[in-house]
Amino acid sequence: MSAGKWLEVALVHYPVNNRRGELIGSAVTNLDIHDIARTGRTYGIARFHLVTPYADQQSLVAELLAHWLTGRGGELNPARKEALQLVRVVPDLAGLYAKITARQGEAPLVVATSARAQGREIAYQDLKKRLVAKGPTLILLGTAWGLAPEALAEVDAFLPPISGGGDYNHLPVRSAAAIIMDRLLAVT
Amino acid sequence: MSAGKWLEVALVHYPVNNRRGELIGSAVTNLDIHDIARTGRTYGIARFHLVTPYADQQSLVAELLAHWLTGRGGELNPARKEALQLVRVVPDLAGLYAKITARQGEAPLVVATSARAQGREIAYQDLKKRLVAKGPTLILLGTAWGLAPEALAEVDAFLPPISGGGDYNHLPVRSAAAIIMDRLLAVT
Repeated sequence: MSAGKWLEVALVHYPVNNRRGELIGSAVTNLDIHDIARTGRTYGIARFHLVTPYADQQSLVAELLAHWLTGRGGELNPARKEALQLVRVVPDLAGLYAKITARQGEAPLVVATSARAQGREIAYQDLKKRLVAKGPTLILLGTAWGLAPEALAEVDAFLPPISGGGDYNHLPVRSAAAIIMDRLLAVT
Repeated sequence: MSAGKWLEVALVHYPVNNRRGELIGSAVTNLDIHDIARTGRTYGIARFHLVTPYADQQSLVAELLAHWLTGRGGELNPARKEALQLVRVVPDLAGLYAKITARQGEAPLVVATSARAQGREIAYQDLKKRLVAKGPTLILLGTAWGLAPEALAEVDAFLPPISGGGDYNHLPVRSAAAIIMDRLLAVT
């Protein structure tokens, strides 16, 4: 069984910050769902959660998923259906933690990513070992200008910022998700 | 100087295959340009080329780039401008090879990626060493259902397929690009 089975990824649309550091909720982006689900399926992760408290956004996602899971989309493109089967929608982080804890039988290690260096870092190698040892792990990815302080305060650890050697830290969240899953779960 | 300076990435819209393995030209996707440019800027690559022979597609890209490089977009989002400065448009692969050879003073090693295993593989570690040793290198990424055989026949080597341990090989090209640059150029 792949170590990916112990990894869940959540794309958080609330609480996040806007450009001015204010608390906002962001809109769900169709492409983020497809890209991160396809990458998640490639690396065999357990679930890909979309966190949004807004009923209209939740219905939008439900409609999109229905097209691919039970509708015409999945007939035309079964590979896409297979990827989108990983997607779940949850209203808030507290609900997400409770859901994972109930399913896995223990609380997951909640790990956030950040474009800026934070304290409480966990090295990629150490998180990789945790997954191989079947330790349930949840990675939180922020949208907009990143997870709000109230979400960051609750996480157990931070992955180090992804660095390409320079000081440019504006990776798309879709790309950061791919790099993180590859670093944790690649078979080379 | 970062090893990324020796790496160029090209997103190829012709010649590629469609779902039935027929030769086609694909349409340029706005999001591919933004995402791969942002990742390329993160890892300090030299150039990001869009290969398309179609005049209408070339004008579309020129318009988009103008918005970000000299227009309102770049004023509002300087980080995006910085990423899109990497983008160049070329009509065909032969022209691209000639251009890089002229600028670098030697022909680049042309490396393709493939979702299927091919012969002539080069390991990530070996390509990384080549970049550190200042060897000009061009990575070709295919759109649609991948580079057509006529393009594949001309490349010098193939990177091994990206594997997450399973048999699902439907990564978005944007995500594959991010994973490849991270494997070749990450500073950890």
